[in-house]
Amino acid sequence: MQKQKLKYEGKAKRVFESDRPGLAVIEYKDDATAFNARKKGTVKGKGRVNNLMTAHLYPLLEQAGVPTHFVELLGETEQAVHMLSIVPVEVIVRNVAAGSFAARLGLNEGVPLDSPVIEYCYKSDELGDPLVSDNTPVAMGWAEPGVLAEIRRLSLLANDFLIGYLADRDIRLIDIKFEFGLLPDGSVVLADEISPDTSRLWDAASAEKLDKDRFRRDLGGVEDAYQQILTRVLT
Amino acid sequence: MQKQKLKYEGKAKRVFESDRPGLAVIEYKDDATAFNARKKGTVKGKGRVNNLMTAHLYPLLEQAGVPTHFVELLGETEQAVHMLSIVPVEVIVRNVAAGSFAARLGLNEGVPLDSPVIEYCYKSDELGDPLVSDNTPVAMGWAEPGVLAEIRRLSLLANDFLIGYLADRDIRLIDIKFEFGLLPDGSVVLADEISPDTSRLWDAASAEKLDKDRFRRDLGGVEDAYQQILTRVLT
Repeated sequence: MQKQKLKYEGKAKRVFESDRPGLAVIEYKDDATAFNARKKGTVKGKGRVNNLMTAHLYPLLEQAGVPTHFVELLGETEQAVHMLSIVPVEVIVRNVAAGSFAARLGLNEGVPLDSPVIEYCYKSDELGDPLVSDNTPVAMGWAEPGVLAEIRRLSLLANDFLIGYLADRDIRLIDIKFEFGLLPDGSVVLADEISPDTSRLWDAASAEKLDKDRFRRDLGGVEDAYQQILTRVLT
Repeated sequence: MQKQKLKYEGKAKRVFESDRPGLAVIEYKDDATAFNARKKGTVKGKGRVNNLMTAHLYPLLEQAGVPTHFVELLGETEQAVHMLSIVPVEVIVRNVAAGSFAARLGLNEGVPLDSPVIEYCYKSDELGDPLVSDNTPVAMGWAEPGVLAEIRRLSLLANDFLIGYLADRDIRLIDIKFEFGLLPDGSVVLADEISPDTSRLWDAASAEKLDKDRFRRDLGGVEDAYQQILTRVLT
């Protein structure tokens, strides 16, 4: 499979067309950004960790009933995926109060939630991915009602699977962001990645942060945390 | 009916205990605040307008199937209401993009929405009434699932009724905020007020703003706009 023309360059990934119809190649970068790209940096080895972690978890999620865009691993920082029409909605599933949610509601980080909180954000760098209410995506025409319902169902299913999978590896899934797209036949599949960039992962025993918050908050040991997550996930 | 001890003083109202068990007296003030009380002022006659408008509309909403806390009008700026256990969730129903919604999503004000957008905010002056996702109130224990579902149903029903009632008086209902509480028997009733303080009301022909945005945005003619709304609503 050959990479061809660069289709899109994002903050943490490059997407290339390929020589196989309907497939694209994603190249994961070490570039890190936070606070809507107001903070920038590099996390050595991050591209490899996020690529390998996603390539490991997506087939397991498929088995658990969550279709994904993943096709095959191509190299340490590259994978082949199905081309999608991306739904411009980010889904955040929160199991424990942290980050913007804790700040917005004046809660201490680490307070468990009675049931998972699902939040939708409008995918727009320009607007800073603003939070929107549950029926805004349909009212704005970003997603059909059936598509949004399926996105919600798959997000909860993926969250459930990942909570258990990670707990077995002494990792607590605090919250996670999912993105979805539509295949040409209209079916909804999980896109993007699952990594310490897109989730909060705490050591189950020590509550040590093993995710992008180490970068966001200048906690140090960012590279080590990413490597440790990959090691545990692949075990 | 006699006013007794002051129970609570808010930004635009005072609530008193009364000599009748289970009933309270609300006194509407002319005080106006905006931007979470960072802007303060007085709108002469506002207390009277909001009190009389609410006292006129709540019996009509009851007839339309929306139970309310309203009991009876006591005077130009006072009404008797049932005491409630307030649900700490504000419901905003939006028919047309405006205000914080338009700003957050980068839309021009005045763009009609395909279907009403419902937003929940956590009622907290300290936190600035932050937007929350639809299932946050249940996850946080602010409302039982059945109560939240009833709040949503009643909000849409009230919005539907008001759109029609106001359209007949050449007023376009852009958006509106509702608050709800529980009677001692656990039933959900509409609380607070319906007024130019809690809704956006545009003249149907000219799109002139006849609501609190005249105060928020220093457009002038605030008192006249409130009086004009009251006159049209009572007609």
